[in-house]
Order: sequence, then structure tokens, then C-alpha cells
Amino acid sequence: MQIARVCGTVVSTQKEPSLTGTKFLLLQLVDQEGELLPEYEVAADTVGAGIDEWVLFSRGSAARQVLGSEKRPLDAAVIAIIDTISAGNRLIYSKRDQYR
Amino acid sequence: MQIARVCGTVVSTQKEPSLTGTKFLLLQLVDQEGELLPEYEVAADTVGAGIDEWVLFSRGSAARQVLGSEKRPLDAAVIAIIDTISAGNRLIYSKRDQYR
Amino acid sequence: MQIARVCGTVVSTQKEPSLTGTKFLLLQLVDQEGELLPEYEVAADTVGAGIDEWVLFSRGSAARQVLGSEKRPLDAAVIAIIDTISAGNRLIYSKRDQYR
Amino acid sequence: MQIARVCGTVVSTQKEPSLTGTKFLLLQLVDQEGELLPEYEVAADTVGAGIDEWVLFSRGSAARQVLGSEKRPLDAAVIAIIDTISAGNRLIYSKRDQYR
Amino acid sequence: MQIARVCGTVVSTQKEPSLTGTKFLLLQLVDQEGELLPEYEVAADTVGAGIDEWVLFSRGSAARQVLGSEKRPLDAAVIAIIDTISAGNRLIYSKRDQYR
Repeated sequence: MQIARVCGTVVSTQKEPSLTGTKFLLLQLVDQEGELLPEYEVAADTVGAGIDEWVLFSRGSAARQVLGSEKRPLDAAVIAIIDTISAGNRLIYSKRDQYR
Repeated sequence: MQIARVCGTVVSTQKEPSLTGTKFLLLQLVDQEGELLPEYEVAADTVGAGIDEWVLFSRGSAARQVLGSEKRPLDAAVIAIIDTISAGNRLIYSKRDQYR
Repeated sequence: MQIARVCGTVVSTQKEPSLTGTKFLLLQLVDQEGELLPEYEVAADTVGAGIDEWVLFSRGSAARQVLGSEKRPLDAAVIAIIDTISAGNRLIYSKRDQYR
Repeated sequence: MQIARVCGTVVSTQKEPSLTGTKFLLLQLVDQEGELLPEYEVAADTVGAGIDEWVLFSRGSAARQVLGSEKRPLDAAVIAIIDTISAGNRLIYSKRDQYR
Repeated sequence: MQIARVCGTVVSTQKEPSLTGTKFLLLQLVDQEGELLPEYEVAADTVGAGIDEWVLFSRGSAARQVLGSEKRPLDAAVIAIIDTISAGNRLIYSKRDQYR
């Protein structure tokens, strides 16, 4: 999985019929030091993630291992909202600090 | 999923038999600021996308989660025509503005 | 799918038993302007492609969606010989012109 | 598979329900000479790997070929803790030396 | 598939139980001119490849299309030992020449 910040949304009316009801989030990828990268992914939301939250997302067939998405043509999905990222003794990210 | 602009078509007569009737679109990838990238993908069209439209496409086995494509040797498919892309309060792309 | 030019072959006697009879083509990738890239893929041939022909190839599990290859350990396959590539009003490639 | 050093953990409360109990490790990738790379992966732990250990991890659907993870939306998993890496006559890494 | 030279081995005692008996080879990737690249892959051996041999390897779910590996968490496998690589009239690699 990669780490990303939710930065926007993508809206589509004319789409593959099975995608009705799928929310597409625009994610900006984050490196292991917590810096934003110039890379993005559009991922289906499955956990109710909101703008500015940091999330884990999966690519590939993993994106369809979610109740209701088994047959959708998705190759990326948000699977978790991150509380903390720690490396050794350092706290790289904490959701609580972000919103304090 | 990644964002791309439909920029052309690829035509083939001699192909894997199961691909009869599949339309191949030449897509130019777009970055998260809406700038065209020097990268492309040839993807099966499943939603009737036309030249210059911006689309979402999926790679990998997701490309076969489309009615009629389950057994085709496809690794990329257009899954949605994009109406709008928003990041925070900014509107990065709007189909309506494009065609006004 | 990506576009490539068939530039050679790879021959192997000692291989996974299920690969007996599989022809391995050496493909050089082509960019969206029709220029050769310094990247290659070795792909199974399923359509009878010959040296110098331009082809579409698929990566990943798509390479096994071909009659007889379902259980082979392949991650790339040629799926179509290209007749033409068009972008807007420009003809980027035409098989007919190439062999004229 | 790629080689990585376990450098941290990612914690999430709000996640896809099937991920309850999954431990997420932050891995820093290692090149073939044993040097740390500026790339990371967040992978599910299946072998009890600890901080500073070197591991092999798999990406893609392989991450779900683990007892209990078959239906989890995972695209990366630690599959082995490395004892030694040898190239020709050189020992590039030895777990025993690391902890001596 | 990509071309690689077998350059070493990775040994692990503590691993996912299904991997017992799997031999992990350290592969160094080779470009289309036969030059070694600064990239590697750790792949399961299924064909008895030895040090310095050139091989084809597959990534992704293809690595599990091998008798006995169907349920192993592998994302890369050596599938063939290369005899020759030809591009046009040039012989880029020949196993016979290498060992003469």
C-alpha cells in the first residue's frame, strides 16, 4: 500500500454502469518522510475519507476485495484512514496533531 | 485510476479473435494539475468516449470487469467520462467549460 | 496496452513445461509519437506477428486470456498487429505505408 | 519480490472491516548492493517481522495468498525474514552479523 | 517477461509456511542490448537456473501458474533459461558462447 492525502474528487455521470454510487477521490501521494509527491491516484472510497485526511490505498485487484466492489472495474481503493505513522522513535504523522 | 485525454485510435484487423468489436482508444495521461504528460495508454472503450474528452481508465485485471470483456486479453479500459475534477476549492477540469 | 515494434526473438529449451510451443518475441516499445523507446518486453506471440511489425501487447493476467495460455506463467502477450494509429487528424503509423 | 528493511508502523482505526487485526509495516526498499533506497511500501505483516529486520515482500495479488488474508484488500505483504543475501562469493547481508 | 542474469540467492528460515522448499534467486535485470541494469528482482526458481545463467522471469500472478506454487505468495518466478536472444540479424546473447 502507499500513503496519500485526499486532495479532491472526480465526478462522472457517463460511466460503466456498475460504478453507480462509487465515490472517486483524488489522492496525492506522500513519501516516507511525510512530504507530498508530484504523483496522484484516483481511488474509490470505501471508508468515508474526507479532504486532507491521510489514507492507505491499494492498487490492482485488491481494490475489488471490498464488499460491493467485487465486480467493479476498479484498480485503486482507499482502504484505511491513517491515525499515525511512526518510523523508529519518530512520529512522522499523527491525525490528532493535524486537526488540533 | 489515472486521468487521461482521448487523443486518437488504434485499428487492427489481425488480432486475438476475442477482441473482435473492441474499440482501442489512444489516451494521453494528465497530471493532477490538468497538464498533459508524455505518457500514453491504449485502452478499450466501454463508455463511448470521444476525441478530446477526459476520462478515467483502469489498468490490470480491472479492465476485464466489464460486461462482455471478462475473457478478453485487455489490461486497460476507459471506465468513465469525467464531468469535473476538483481539488480543495479549485476546479481543475470541467467538461462543460471545455465545450462552451 | 502499449505499442511496440517486434525486433527479435528469445529461444529457450529448458523452461517451465507448460511453455512448450510458446514463441517469445522481443518487443521494443514505441511512444505516442511513434518513436522507439529504450524499453523492451519479451511477450508471447498469439497472433503470428513478424519482425518489424507494430503490435499491441498486454501485461499481467491479461496475457493468459488467450486460448491455450490460461495456465502458462506468462505476464505479457502480443494481442494485435496494428494497421493504423491516428491522433486527431494525423496518421502516426500505417502498416501499409511501412511496407510500400 | 523486493528486499526491504522494516522501519516503522502505520496505525489505523477507521478502515475496511476485513482489515481488523492486520498489522501494517512501513518498509524502506533496499537495492541489490544492500543500500537503502528512497522508496517505501506499506505491507501487511504475516511473519512477525520486527523493526530493522530485512525482509522479502510481495506485491499484487500475491499479498492475499496468505492464510486469513484471501479476502482482504491488500496489495503488499511481508512473506519472509531474510537470513542472508549472497551474490557470487560476496555476502551482501547477514542477519547474524547485523545483531552481533 | 524481462531478461535477467542470475547473480545470487536469498535465504530465509522464518517465512510464510507455504514457502517451505522455495528457492529464491537474486536476479539482475538486463536491457535489450544485453547490458546489465541497476535493477533487481528476487524470484522463485522453477527451472533449476544457476549463477550467471540468463533467464526469463514473469511478475505478478503469472508467478503462481507453476505446479506447486498456485497458493504461494509469490510475485516473481524464473520461467525459462535463455539459449539465445536475437534482434534482426544480430545475436545479442548465446548461452553456448558464454560457456565456451
